[in-house]
Amino acid sequence: MALGVKAIPFTFVVHVLGIAGLILVLVWTIDFRGGLAWESTNKSLIFNIHPVLMLIGLIIIGGEAIISYKSLPLSKEKKKLVHLVLHAIALILGIIGVYAAFKYHNESSIANLYSLHSWLGIGIIVLYAIQWIYGFLVFFYPGGSGELRSACIPWHVVFGLVVYVLAVGNASLGFLEKLTFLENSGVAKYGSEAFLVNFTAVITILFGAFVVLSVLSQAPAEDDHSYSAI
Amino acid sequence: MALGVKAIPFTFVVHVLGIAGLILVLVWTIDFRGGLAWESTNKSLIFNIHPVLMLIGLIIIGGEAIISYKSLPLSKEKKKLVHLVLHAIALILGIIGVYAAFKYHNESSIANLYSLHSWLGIGIIVLYAIQWIYGFLVFFYPGGSGELRSACIPWHVVFGLVVYVLAVGNASLGFLEKLTFLENSGVAKYGSEAFLVNFTAVITILFGAFVVLSVLSQAPAEDDHSYSAI
Repeated sequence: MALGVKAIPFTFVVHVLGIAGLILVLVWTIDFRGGLAWESTNKSLIFNIHPVLMLIGLIIIGGEAIISYKSLPLSKEKKKLVHLVLHAIALILGIIGVYAAFKYHNESSIANLYSLHSWLGIGIIVLYAIQWIYGFLVFFYPGGSGELRSACIPWHVVFGLVVYVLAVGNASLGFLEKLTFLENSGVAKYGSEAFLVNFTAVITILFGAFVVLSVLSQAPAEDDHSYSAI
Repeated sequence: MALGVKAIPFTFVVHVLGIAGLILVLVWTIDFRGGLAWESTNKSLIFNIHPVLMLIGLIIIGGEAIISYKSLPLSKEKKKLVHLVLHAIALILGIIGVYAAFKYHNESSIANLYSLHSWLGIGIIVLYAIQWIYGFLVFFYPGGSGELRSACIPWHVVFGLVVYVLAVGNASLGFLEKLTFLENSGVAKYGSEAFLVNFTAVITILFGAFVVLSVLSQAPAEDDHSYSAI
């Protein structure tokens, strides 16, 4: 265990930052950018689905899935179920969010997959899915031998955290990219929208940092420490 | 210790990726962007100093400073000296690199400190300096008590890695931001320069990932494991 402090306070901070991030991204997309729509002649409303679903999905629910092992007063089996179900929801929302970005591009005749954000995004969603499938098979159903699980758990934790940190970093790239496009179209560089988007990105990064700190801290005493591979 | 594998192979990969990243950023700034200059009527040449120094400094030398504890066959005291000297060089190059960005902005009448990249960059360089000063005082001179050092080392490792990962993420933001500006000025989205910059960012991220994996893996057997706090 890396840090000699309890994880629970960090997980409270994660929840608060998650709520703050959710509010900020909704204020941005609804108040400043006109709202969300799956079908619309105003194609920007289709785009708006992308940041909302990516933030709620991969970042917030994905982060809650990670810390659920440290923060829930449940049995190991129940926590495992919560962990994999939350990650499945995160992944599904992430896939719909990625689809929304392509839909917006295609209906607006904007090129696909030329930016670093898009390249990394495709890579991350694929790695997230691989991590989920591998975790499901080894730790849930059918489940590997005790020896295999013991060998896999540190890699599961480290690989999962690497993919999660990449997702948080790529969310920041997305906020910067979109805001740069908007500023090129006339949005003020020091205006309220620019500050809102930058602060949303900062909150997202802090959220990710506190998820990582939760993992590196100590599980509650009653815990079986099965997750404390790091 | 998180991962039951030796760190040394990971550190070899770090060196190779570092050399690759260095070559790519030099090809970009010199071949595609006209070279580097501290004083020039072509202000873009002043900007070019920024990505080169940030990548060589905070990312490559900073990463080598981190893994030096795992990769060098030296005594603990000598490794500590290498670690702090490399981090000092990284920090100084980083400060000059940040100054170059301001110099370019000021001489080109471009606004300062409006973007997420600039906000995070200032925060990261300050945190990097705090981490260096605190590490110097506690672990080198005058040095804290054994008890204080033991209490501080896990936080030193975790805080250092968080700052380093933020630096790698912010380098990616910088590459994406600059390329987006260039594409708005006519650089082709699927052209060779765009691919070069995106691949440099991908190499930078892989470099950072392998630095983290080195830290999470096992020091050579003859090592005193003093750094193995995680």
